[in-house]
Parts: sequence; C-alpha cells; structure tokens
Amino acid sequence: MAKEITARDENYSDWYIDIVKKANLAENSAVRGCMVIKPYGFAIWENIRDQLDRMFKDTGHVNAYFPLFIPKSFLSKEAQHVEGFAKECAVVTHHRLMNAPDGSGVIVDPTSKLEEELIVRPTSETIIWHTYKDWIKSYRDLPLLINQWANVVRWEMRTRLFLRTTEFLWQEGHTAHATKEEAIEETLKILDVYATFAEEYMAMPVIKGIKTANERFGGAEETYCIEALMQDGKALQAGTSHFLGQNFAKAFDVTFSNENNQIEHVWATSWGVSTRLMGGLIMTHSDDDGLIVPPRLAPVQVVIVPIPKPSPELDEVAQKVLKALKARGIRTTYDMDTQKRPGFKFAEQELRGVPVRIGLGMRDLANGQLEIARRDTKEKTMVNLEGIEVYIEELLETIQKDLFQKALDLRTRLTYRVDTMEEFQEIIDRETPGFIAAHWDGTTETEIKIKELTKATIRCIPMDAPEEAGVCILTGKPSNRRVLFAKAY
Amino acid sequence: MAKEITARDENYSDWYIDIVKKANLAENSAVRGCMVIKPYGFAIWENIRDQLDRMFKDTGHVNAYFPLFIPKSFLSKEAQHVEGFAKECAVVTHHRLMNAPDGSGVIVDPTSKLEEELIVRPTSETIIWHTYKDWIKSYRDLPLLINQWANVVRWEMRTRLFLRTTEFLWQEGHTAHATKEEAIEETLKILDVYATFAEEYMAMPVIKGIKTANERFGGAEETYCIEALMQDGKALQAGTSHFLGQNFAKAFDVTFSNENNQIEHVWATSWGVSTRLMGGLIMTHSDDDGLIVPPRLAPVQVVIVPIPKPSPELDEVAQKVLKALKARGIRTTYDMDTQKRPGFKFAEQELRGVPVRIGLGMRDLANGQLEIARRDTKEKTMVNLEGIEVYIEELLETIQKDLFQKALDLRTRLTYRVDTMEEFQEIIDRETPGFIAAHWDGTTETEIKIKELTKATIRCIPMDAPEEAGVCILTGKPSNRRVLFAKAY
Repeated sequence: MAKEITARDENYSDWYIDIVKKANLAENSAVRGCMVIKPYGFAIWENIRDQLDRMFKDTGHVNAYFPLFIPKSFLSKEAQHVEGFAKECAVVTHHRLMNAPDGSGVIVDPTSKLEEELIVRPTSETIIWHTYKDWIKSYRDLPLLINQWANVVRWEMRTRLFLRTTEFLWQEGHTAHATKEEAIEETLKILDVYATFAEEYMAMPVIKGIKTANERFGGAEETYCIEALMQDGKALQAGTSHFLGQNFAKAFDVTFSNENNQIEHVWATSWGVSTRLMGGLIMTHSDDDGLIVPPRLAPVQVVIVPIPKPSPELDEVAQKVLKALKARGIRTTYDMDTQKRPGFKFAEQELRGVPVRIGLGMRDLANGQLEIARRDTKEKTMVNLEGIEVYIEELLETIQKDLFQKALDLRTRLTYRVDTMEEFQEIIDRETPGFIAAHWDGTTETEIKIKELTKATIRCIPMDAPEEAGVCILTGKPSNRRVLFAKAY
Repeated sequence: MAKEITARDENYSDWYIDIVKKANLAENSAVRGCMVIKPYGFAIWENIRDQLDRMFKDTGHVNAYFPLFIPKSFLSKEAQHVEGFAKECAVVTHHRLMNAPDGSGVIVDPTSKLEEELIVRPTSETIIWHTYKDWIKSYRDLPLLINQWANVVRWEMRTRLFLRTTEFLWQEGHTAHATKEEAIEETLKILDVYATFAEEYMAMPVIKGIKTANERFGGAEETYCIEALMQDGKALQAGTSHFLGQNFAKAFDVTFSNENNQIEHVWATSWGVSTRLMGGLIMTHSDDDGLIVPPRLAPVQVVIVPIPKPSPELDEVAQKVLKALKARGIRTTYDMDTQKRPGFKFAEQELRGVPVRIGLGMRDLANGQLEIARRDTKEKTMVNLEGIEVYIEELLETIQKDLFQKALDLRTRLTYRVDTMEEFQEIIDRETPGFIAAHWDGTTETEIKIKELTKATIRCIPMDAPEEAGVCILTGKPSNRRVLFAKAY
C-alpha cells in the first residue's frame, strides 16, 4: 500500500498529491478547483482550528459571522483592495432556476437577475467595515476584536489540494482600534500567535517578517507574515497579519469620538490562516511511506495493533492499555480488524501518520513487554507494560520536539547568505533551493527583475534581520539589511 | 434599557426582533436576507454546535467538508429535489470583474462566463452523493456516517432573523447504508439525538413525528421532524431527519457489492438543524425584559455585580467567588465597570439572559451573605458566601429543569384535542392558538384545504400517537390516528 506513493526524489509534486489522496486527507471535487476535505483530513483541520480558536480567545478575541455575499459596489470602495481581488471573483447574478421552455432541462430564470451582482467573499474586510460603521461611535466601543471562521472563494487558475484551491476554509480576524500604536501592537500580537502555533503545534519552524510593498495585501499599510521552508527547499507563506491603517475606515466612513470628543477615523487590522496550513503540515514532516502528523495535532496519537490478530487475551491487555492512555488524554485506538495482517496494518498506520504504534504480541507479553514503534524515525523499542502510559506520554512530547528540530535543522542547512547574483542563481536553480538572505536595494523594480531572472521572490524582510551595510546583489545600490528570497508555493 | 423592548402582548413579532437586536444576537446585513451573527449570538450558537457535535461523534459520526458550489446539472438529477430547491437558488454565472470601459466603475467581465452555472448549495445531497459514488464499492465501505457544518443559501422572499434567512449556518448529516432497515434506524437515531438536545440543552420540549407527503423533503421517502411550540402558540420545525431510500443512490448511480457479491443501490439518510434553533431558543424562554438562556447553553452562566461599584474589598471577595465557581466549570464573569450603576447593570444582564446574578454588597457581606437573583423567575435570595459554589451549581441545574417544565406546561395548556371544524377554527383563530390534535383523512387534498381555510398545517403525525378510530374533521372520512395541526413559523 505505501509502495504506491511516488518517492520525493522522483517527483516531489506527485509525492505530495499521493500523500494527500492516499492518506485520505482530501480530493478534487466535481467543481473545478474546489476540494472535498475527507474525514481524516478534516479531523486534523479540526485540531488546528480548535487550538487556534483557543489562542484567539485567550488573547481577548470573540467569534462572529458575516454574510457570504458582498455587494459588488462594496468591493470597489477601497481601490487597492478591488485591484487585488477583482480578477478572481465568483459572481452571483441570478436567484432562480426554471424549466427550459423546450423541455431540455433546468435553466437560469432570466427574470431573476439581481439588481446588483453579489460577490462570493474572497475576504471580508468590506462587508465587515460596512457593518462596523454602525457598531462604532465612541472610543468606549473600541477595541473591537472579532474573528470569523468561514469559507472563502478566489477563482484561482492553477489549483493544488490544500495549497491553492478555489474555495478554502480559513479564519479571518478583523479588529478596530482607537490608535495606530494599538492596531500595530495587535497585528504583531497575532503574528506571534501564528508563529507560536506553527512551531509548537505544527512543529513547523517559521520566519516572522514583513512583506515588501509589492507583496502587500490589497488595502494594507503593512503586511506581516510567517514563512516556512518545505522539504523541497521551497517557501510557504503560512499566515499573514495586516496593519490596515485607516484605509477601510475611510472607505466605509467609520469614525469614533475620542476621549476629547474629537471625531477620528478608526485604525484596523486583519489577519488569517487557512486550510493551506494542511499543505505546510504535510510537506514539513511526511516521508516516502506516507503522512507524518505531529502528536499535538494527530487525531489518533497511538494505535494498538494485536499480533497476529485480536484474541481474548490480547483484547484484555489492549483494553487496559487503552484505558490507561485515555486517562491521560492520549487519543488512542485499538485496531480490531480481523481480516488484515499486522504488516498491512503497520503500513496503513504509517500512511496515516499515527505518531506511535504499539505492537501487542503474546510472546512479548509473556515477558511483560510491548513493542513501541515511532512513526517519525521508524525506531522500535521494547517497553514494559507496567507504566506504559508514562512512557508514551513522554514519547509523544519527544516526537513533537524532534519533528520541530529536524525541520529546523533542514531549514538551517538550506538557508544561505549570498552576495552575488551568480551564487544566487546557482543556489536557486538547485533541485532543492532554500532561503537566500541577500541584500536588495528596496525597489519594486529590482524585486520584479530578480523574480524574472530567477523565479525567486522576496518572502519577507525578517523581523530579526540585523542592520548590516551592503549592496544590492542585482543593482549594487546600497542596502542596510538582508531580505529573504526563495521560490515559493 | 429593557424598557425599549416591545411587550409580547403588544406585538409578539416586534418583541422577537427587539430581543434579537437588543440582546446583540444578530442584525440584518447590507445583503438582502443575510444576517450578521453578532459575537454574543455567535457564542450561544457555538455552545449549540459544540454540544451537537459531541453527540454526533458519540454516535459514530465524523465531520468532512464538501464544496460550496453545486453544478447546475447535479441539482436536476433527482426530480423531486430540484423541484424543491430550483426557485430559491443563488446562481454563480461569472468568475471575474473588470473596470468598465467608460470608467464608470467595476463591472462583471462578460468573457468570464462559466460554461455551466454553479448553484450556491441550498443543501448538499447531490454533490455528496456524486462524491460517494467513488467512495463506496463494497459492503465493507458501509456504513458511511458523515456530517458537515456549513453555510447554505436559499433565496427566501420573506426573511426574519434566525428563523428564515437567505444564508444560514447548519449541520447536514449524510449517511450511506447497506440496508433499508439500517438507514431507517439511523434516521430515527438522529431524531432522538435532536430531541434529546432540544429538551436537555435548549430546555425546549419537542414532539417527534413524521411529516405528511406534502411536507416531505424533496427526494425523501420519509421525513421525520421535531416540532416545538413557541410562546405565541405557533409551531417551529426545529430539526428534520430524512430517510432517502435509494433515490439519491439511483440518481448518482451509487452501488455496492453485498456480502454475496451482488450489486445493490445504497440506502441513504440526511438530517439537519440550523441557526433557526436560535430562534426557537429565544421564543421558548424569553420575556418582556429580554433574553433568557438555559444555563447549559449560556456563554455566561453567572455574573457578579459589585454594589454600588468595584472596591478593593469587593474585588477581593469577587475574585474568590470567581475562582470557586470556575473551578466547578461554571462560566462566570465579574462586572468591573466603574461607570454604570448597579440598576443599569442588572437590566443589562437581564436583557442578555444571564441565568444567575450575584449581588455583592458590603452590608450583606458583613453578615457573610450574598444576594442571588434568578433571571428566569426574578427571585432573589440571600445565600451564605461559604459554599456558594455548591449552591450555584445546583441552582443552575434547577433553572435548567424549571425552564423545561415551564415550557412543557405551556405546551400542555396549548394542546387541544378537537373533533369539529368549528372548534378547530375557533382555537386556531385565537391570539395564542397552539397544537390541535385532530383526525385527518390522509389525503394531500384535505391537508391543503384545511390550510386554505385556517392557515394551519399538519406539523407531523406524532410518533407516539395511539391508534384511535375517528373521522376526518373536514371530510368525515375515516381516520385511525390523530395528527398535529398548528400555525407555524
């Protein structure tokens, strides 16, 4: 079964799609570019969502829900914003079907044409700021710290499961503040939440940074991001947090009276992560045998497999282990299938990325032992049945840390400081390129030229990039800080 | 503040809208018929969703996600189904906007017309059964027990917040089975889950029953429902569970090989509840002072109000009480606002329907006591600070039970056994009509005629209706069971 997966070395892109499909995470649907998220994939997404939701609530945010549809005229109110989304919009124009007069089937009823077309939300700044106008009158109404979990649609031409789909699931935070400082503080706070989540739960190291003007969100003053490096040396933008200034407040005329009774425009942020994170999770850890899920996000953390098959004696031990593990909150299942052989089950659980497998055999049990196998390293260890729950609990934490460290080591190996275009080109052309820290003259012109020459984009200006005098690798003009280039998803 | 609410006696419909708006549950949006669910309303919905989700998972269901869009041709594959939904569909016809050549703004790009129109899902049977075709090959793939939490769109002409909106949030279960018996068993199991949830969590008594052919879901063989009675004597359909037979399996050609290697069509169910439940929750319990939320679903179960305002001494006691209540999992907040007076805060918390209020005053504290006020009965009691957490925990359970009992008593008072059309008409014309159990001859013709005469519809044939010989109140034809009539939302 695991053999059906294309090896990463052979074709990384096919490998990715094989994992997504064969581990039952998602598949393409009958609707172009839209995916079906299958139960196992959705269970991982639920863990991602629930943890992020807790973190948002712990930082004072509440959830709400805004309409799926946005009147066309709303989208046009912020010039940069409509520029960014107009070309990839699903447009609702009618509200009724009818039987074709010639009996050929069901057609759109032409008399049901809408007065104003509705756009299926690609993001919700416009409808939300239209709503905030009625909610915000005074400084006492601020800050407004609202998040929404929703589906959004962007009509992408080339799609790939989880990484780029026409419809995707995400959360979008939209906050309103009385001062610029407070809005920037919120933008950065969320960036930290995203980075903490990515590193501590997804075990995916990220670089926090600022996007260049060219890569900024339509309508933002500043876009912050977290960028991760996949195993193939390509970068993935994993989350963005935008300081929107007063742009949307001005477009939708949202003002408040401050403590001195003066009328001011409100300051805004917006921020989001999406089912794209699933793609990052898969590509950060998985191998040629299948998916690897970090324990903290795994729907099943431990699977117990009876060897060679279930029996009253083995079932009894399994139930005891199950109970002891569940008592510690460890998500455990017992594979009671009587048809499949252990080897088949092992391969199946490896494909699904279950972090720990417990092999339960009569011979080992006679010695009071069990076989523990780690999904990530494939290491097997004999462990005493007595106190197994403590061992497993620690092992899960170890695996979580090891996965992060392994990904961090890879990123370190694949991050280069480069000072010439020749070296830049040589690295970026490799099978597995990576992050390149190089000097850039700060102009969009140079940024675009480098992209044309190398296919690499500036992923971000890292938050922790030290000041360093240098010259732009392309133009030789002065630069005072290295930025991070990479090929990207 | 509470005075702004229209009294139920005066205008029940205005009262309802006042509660929804003034308790900050939801409001109309800029998009016709679509609502904004505000943070407090959404927090209640989250509690509803989380509890139902646990109950679905406890009964073996898993979540997944299917596309928002349905190709027009899919909808047409099941004749009854398209009949049921064609007239209220949002239709996507284009996928791009452009700048108008005359500079007048943004218009739909005519060159982006879709080859086949997409319908924003009004429900997902068609896209899901199209998907199941690839998932189901053998009896070993069955049953498939899948649920989805999603937004759906039905282009309603007359809308009312929560009760009937163009876009609403819901869950839709779609299960596939090898036998008819198993599918019917599933349909009934979910009906029980819905009834248990409605009664034990929403404290809303419901009648389980079967819909008449005329009220059946488009594409179902049998529709089961739970029906509740609101305070104004009108019925609310609160959830439906459909036995779909093999209709969708046949429309989408979904077959499996059974244990004897014979090919059969798959049996199906679907079932759903929606944000409409919020409407039921509001109308079952609330009064002229505002919302009343049953403790089990209340985002805030207890609010502590310092009298007359926060002070170091009161804050210290409040923190102790807060800690003791939270330790028992009781959702508690401390109202530390220093500007508002206690009376204003009381009214505010009543409007929001917080089940229990603790008044914290120095004089009472000197006696080691606190004032406890119930939202539902407005009763106030002096209670010892010592052991307050035990008292509150029991009180919340008592309130939960009392709310259910009160609603049940009202329903009992408003349920009538009627044997003549005169009596039927007299009751149904009352300001507060109710449920009428009457004999009916079983024909759609009679059902429609009674509706024309009285505006009452058959809500359901109750599951527990005993066999009883009688004659139809309209036609005098024989009937062997009473059915339940009511005016309905």
